[in-house]
Amino acid sequence: MPTKTVSHADLVAASAVDVRRAIRNGSYAGHTSGLAAGKLQCNLAILPERFALDFLRFCLRNPKPCPVVAVGDTGNPDLFTLGHDIDIRTDVSMYRVFRDGVLAEEVPDITDVWADDLVTVALGCSFTFENALLRNGIPVRHIESAKNVPMFRSNIDLVPAGPFHGKMVVTMRPIPEHQVEQAKAISAGFPQAHGAPIAVGDPTRIGIADLSQPDWGDAVEIKPGEVPVYWACGVTPQNVLLDAQLPLCITHSPGHMLIADVAEDAETTIISTN
Amino acid sequence: MPTKTVSHADLVAASAVDVRRAIRNGSYAGHTSGLAAGKLQCNLAILPERFALDFLRFCLRNPKPCPVVAVGDTGNPDLFTLGHDIDIRTDVSMYRVFRDGVLAEEVPDITDVWADDLVTVALGCSFTFENALLRNGIPVRHIESAKNVPMFRSNIDLVPAGPFHGKMVVTMRPIPEHQVEQAKAISAGFPQAHGAPIAVGDPTRIGIADLSQPDWGDAVEIKPGEVPVYWACGVTPQNVLLDAQLPLCITHSPGHMLIADVAEDAETTIISTN
Repeated sequence: MPTKTVSHADLVAASAVDVRRAIRNGSYAGHTSGLAAGKLQCNLAILPERFALDFLRFCLRNPKPCPVVAVGDTGNPDLFTLGHDIDIRTDVSMYRVFRDGVLAEEVPDITDVWADDLVTVALGCSFTFENALLRNGIPVRHIESAKNVPMFRSNIDLVPAGPFHGKMVVTMRPIPEHQVEQAKAISAGFPQAHGAPIAVGDPTRIGIADLSQPDWGDAVEIKPGEVPVYWACGVTPQNVLLDAQLPLCITHSPGHMLIADVAEDAETTIISTN
Repeated sequence: MPTKTVSHADLVAASAVDVRRAIRNGSYAGHTSGLAAGKLQCNLAILPERFALDFLRFCLRNPKPCPVVAVGDTGNPDLFTLGHDIDIRTDVSMYRVFRDGVLAEEVPDITDVWADDLVTVALGCSFTFENALLRNGIPVRHIESAKNVPMFRSNIDLVPAGPFHGKMVVTMRPIPEHQVEQAKAISAGFPQAHGAPIAVGDPTRIGIADLSQPDWGDAVEIKPGEVPVYWACGVTPQNVLLDAQLPLCITHSPGHMLIADVAEDAETTIISTN
């Protein structure tokens, strides 16, 4: 029941709580890039409890593509370890609902889909280390050029768990050669956000034939003196969930992340109750 | 069927695999401190699958005391993400078997106790960051004085999950005042091993009345110019498991850790299969 629609620009200076409120009351349904600066943004995977143990096993065995930052109680939409009064049914601006591995609907609210057996898993996202790269004077090409980050299926096997298995999806960012070591060190400091790169240099070593043909997102220019650097990508768990063809599974829509009250550079992603 | 008993000294230069073999074949039943230098050592919690999702939730909500470094498949004693041919029923030198929250037996082999519904969770341990402190010239008092680290019940609430809840147990190490910041930075680099300290200085701020009266382990001297520094402790999940009075739960015996093939300073604790 939106009383008034607000724009991305209207929310740029808003707190995480206020952005979630605008999303919850239906006045904002856009992407979350650049909102609530300094706060952790999260990928979302919601699935029936009977698959949750295997999914957590899968994430814990593949921590670089699947860094778990929060797990909800079964049937409880309050993701209390990530912030104050988060209702996971309403506080993300766009959701994708999959049934048997097929996209059934894309909706701004999953109150009608929510069920007592659902478990929410929140996963870290690359915004965290990209912000740290930018703060340290390392360029991030797709942000400079207002594109989506290029994403590729690699040939890197994931460690399986139950019905969850597959190949790792990676993102690519061209980094000036003299800044590659610094970029590795900076991102290594964010294990909750994919950590250090998976690979540097020749794309064919990780099964990528052509950097100008990403599987998702947009191709970006690699300038002279720059080296392609590859990080594990949060699309990995989404693909793995779809391939597992669960009867029901809900994710955020790309770019429509959950915004937490936790600082993106906090040592842990748990809001202290002390 | 030990063919020959070996001593701790005999194994000091042995590989992780060779130490596990000596333990498996019954020729070594001692503690693992100082063995397989540079390899990750782990706390162990084995519990029935129906409690495993809540226990993983608990660990993920309390990552400093309970850093998960591996989770086994239900009923599978091979902890394959931590190393080659690990059989969790035989490769730890001493186990504690608890029934309904009470210590039932302490045994060097749990083959007879193992069941198809058991899930193994391995958790990081403080050996990892203690070794890093020592490498950087920061003294570790209980090691210098050949004592056990002093451990205390704090008043810090854990974030609950299902039947798992309680207060955090902390360890205390006296650190020279001028090295406290360095010790914080070094240990922060090991999130898989309790990470940065929980508190520094006055023990009463975290509910500890008397540093000379630890709840477990030995009291150690705090010299002039030193500050007590507190880290989250791996005894925390053990206490929480006991308080939950599970019908069956198995842990390692104190000091008798699981030795992995993973390097203790690796970015992730997963052995690559690529």
